[in-house]
Amino acid sequence: MRAVRVGMLGLGTVGSGTLAVLRRNAEEISRRAGRAIEVTHAVVRDPARARQVPLEGLTVAADPAAVVDNPAIDIVCELMGGTEPARTLVLRALAHGKPVVTANKALIATHGNEIFAAARATGLMVAFEAAVAGGIPIIKTLREGLAGNRIEGLAGIINGTCNFILSAMQSRGLDFEQALTEAQALGYAEADPAFDIEGVDAAHKLTILASIAFGIPLDCARVHVEGITGVHRADVEHAAELGYRLKLLGIARRGPSGIELRVHPTLVPARQLIANVEGVLNAVLVQGDALGPLLLSGAGAGAEATASAVVADLVDVVRVSTADPHNRVPHLAFQPEYIVAQPVVPIDEVCCPFYLRMLAEDRPGVLADVARIFAEHDISLEAVLQKAPSGHHRHVPIVFLTSRVRERALRDALARIADLPSIRGGVISIRIETFAAGA
Amino acid sequence: MRAVRVGMLGLGTVGSGTLAVLRRNAEEISRRAGRAIEVTHAVVRDPARARQVPLEGLTVAADPAAVVDNPAIDIVCELMGGTEPARTLVLRALAHGKPVVTANKALIATHGNEIFAAARATGLMVAFEAAVAGGIPIIKTLREGLAGNRIEGLAGIINGTCNFILSAMQSRGLDFEQALTEAQALGYAEADPAFDIEGVDAAHKLTILASIAFGIPLDCARVHVEGITGVHRADVEHAAELGYRLKLLGIARRGPSGIELRVHPTLVPARQLIANVEGVLNAVLVQGDALGPLLLSGAGAGAEATASAVVADLVDVVRVSTADPHNRVPHLAFQPEYIVAQPVVPIDEVCCPFYLRMLAEDRPGVLADVARIFAEHDISLEAVLQKAPSGHHRHVPIVFLTSRVRERALRDALARIADLPSIRGGVISIRIETFAAGA
Repeated sequence: MRAVRVGMLGLGTVGSGTLAVLRRNAEEISRRAGRAIEVTHAVVRDPARARQVPLEGLTVAADPAAVVDNPAIDIVCELMGGTEPARTLVLRALAHGKPVVTANKALIATHGNEIFAAARATGLMVAFEAAVAGGIPIIKTLREGLAGNRIEGLAGIINGTCNFILSAMQSRGLDFEQALTEAQALGYAEADPAFDIEGVDAAHKLTILASIAFGIPLDCARVHVEGITGVHRADVEHAAELGYRLKLLGIARRGPSGIELRVHPTLVPARQLIANVEGVLNAVLVQGDALGPLLLSGAGAGAEATASAVVADLVDVVRVSTADPHNRVPHLAFQPEYIVAQPVVPIDEVCCPFYLRMLAEDRPGVLADVARIFAEHDISLEAVLQKAPSGHHRHVPIVFLTSRVRERALRDALARIADLPSIRGGVISIRIETFAAGA
Repeated sequence: MRAVRVGMLGLGTVGSGTLAVLRRNAEEISRRAGRAIEVTHAVVRDPARARQVPLEGLTVAADPAAVVDNPAIDIVCELMGGTEPARTLVLRALAHGKPVVTANKALIATHGNEIFAAARATGLMVAFEAAVAGGIPIIKTLREGLAGNRIEGLAGIINGTCNFILSAMQSRGLDFEQALTEAQALGYAEADPAFDIEGVDAAHKLTILASIAFGIPLDCARVHVEGITGVHRADVEHAAELGYRLKLLGIARRGPSGIELRVHPTLVPARQLIANVEGVLNAVLVQGDALGPLLLSGAGAGAEATASAVVADLVDVVRVSTADPHNRVPHLAFQPEYIVAQPVVPIDEVCCPFYLRMLAEDRPGVLADVARIFAEHDISLEAVLQKAPSGHHRHVPIVFLTSRVRERALRDALARIADLPSIRGGVISIRIETFAAGA
């Protein structure tokens, strides 16, 4: 049987990694797929530029038509990133009868509904395992491995840049800026890191995971997003003293009044496995009603780790392409006619325990003032950590852990506390999440 | 479209759990599969016995023909356990044109080659996700999610009974016998626990994982097996002092001269995620050449956790049944014509660091005698822990951590050490494994 011919859009880090893995593991891959898989064409912006991989046997062109319109290409692999021209080219490939494998989370999160509709109309597969958590097969796990479960919720460390920065602040006492600079020097953060550290990338991935977990349409505008730019080293340290780790989590969870969709810095009890996922690693914790908690942890980025997911998708497309399209694994786990929008809980209505830190004047009565405001808003306290004044500072940090409280009640109380003359500046607040044992 | 009709062989813990999950999540499951999945028939030894689930709408019979020979049954679900009559009934179901889902590790590990050959001959699927690590989708992950990788090795906590016992010894200082009694009282261990605590169950699961990881035939006779019956509380404690946790691991790994296949008590650095998987939880760590380390952790047993895997398999069978059989995911990950036997390294040739404990007379020169024997066998030491003598004991425990040493050299040295007049009794030896960061 002849080899399956893949055309690549983009030959950057992930494209080069995919080419390298397909070549190095060619024998292993064809033992699994029953057919060889070869990249025959690649489209790049500048075909003359030097690449990280040898290009022998590969036709490199600047015009995407060489791949998306080429009758010799069996599968199109979109690894260029960004929403345009990726969206147009993926739709064009589908129109030409070619299944698509993509690693593009922004594309799927923002245009997935349109792309999947086009794929269904043509009976073709669009696979996107590499779009979330790099090489971790979390999409396959949610979509197929947990198909018997009602998914109660999931929480993920799905941005390696943020996890690297927070881990460095935790383990080596760096400031946010120092950790970010180090992440950039190591290639873990972009020159313009906003997309990662402001939580946008994590929100794209959470949008995809939530859709697959709950059978809801992709809609990234509904995710509440807070990044890590406001995280202070002091909070990482206080969290550790209190038995927690600070992580940027993407959380999607069924609640009584709708689905919670939120990306924000979060305190997690240090004894939990997910709290100990360090550096650029990713992890996703899924709570199924039958299975209970399942944790997957592994490389969430990097050329070959992402290539691992891209190649798995290529093998899936090769293996499953002969199935009746209506019987294939649906793009978003649920059959398209059963994708149902559900209410998303406004962040004001979400309930969490909170970590709070404020700078208070070092005199009698201040703690009592603050505690009275908490009581008036019906907020219980689990722990108070008051640090001894250092040197001649007139203000000392006080840290509180609250019981579960509705976000709106907390905000109201914090506004009153910030107005107290004895409190300097605002109040730092970070949500706390505790997961099932073993997670 | 009419519902898919499932016939069950066995209605014990897993069977009842599967029935409960299929009923409770019927809507969620048909949203995913595009068709309803209903259990219509069940075969049990004693149809008159009371069951944990209501049996309305279910035909319960004692004669397996009611399921395996019944033209109204679309899929047979084998949940009776043991090798016979399970083997005969699975083959009979295949001969009658019915795909099979099974949770039976002993059956697959010992008769899988025969069963898969019969399935291929008839173009039918046999799915067995629930046979390894309960609800953790490790078979799908290895077979499909990591299809682009050359799998370098894997290590798993794949027997919940043993992990419960070792965790209880670790965290609460119980003796082996106390922990086993507690496991039995809680239903985590059988009245006759030999199958679990002697490592046989883990060896069956490791056999299946290794076959899927490396594309080798199933052959459980080639696994080196040591259980946990010889583990002393003292070793768990010394391991903790030295920064390790004691786990029963199943390990399959490519080496230069063949594949290592072994189940034995193992010290793992406490900082690694897999070392912190506690209680009845299972975890599998896979090392792919492209992805690097991937850890999956979750429930390895229990009615509904195992049912989670059984139902996922049922959904897979429903989804993929229309694909050309040659293009489906192969049973053992690799296409049957590419399943190749590979040499297995004899345990004598395996290299590991070791934990050693011996009881030595409390007088000068004893440590020197032992150290000289290590030196003569070219065994380096990484750490020595000598405990002060307690009370009027003439013998004190000495603990050594060695560098990597070939098993045969270690055994030779230990035989000489055990012969020293100053050493009382034999020498306890436990292998140490350290995995890649983040694992």
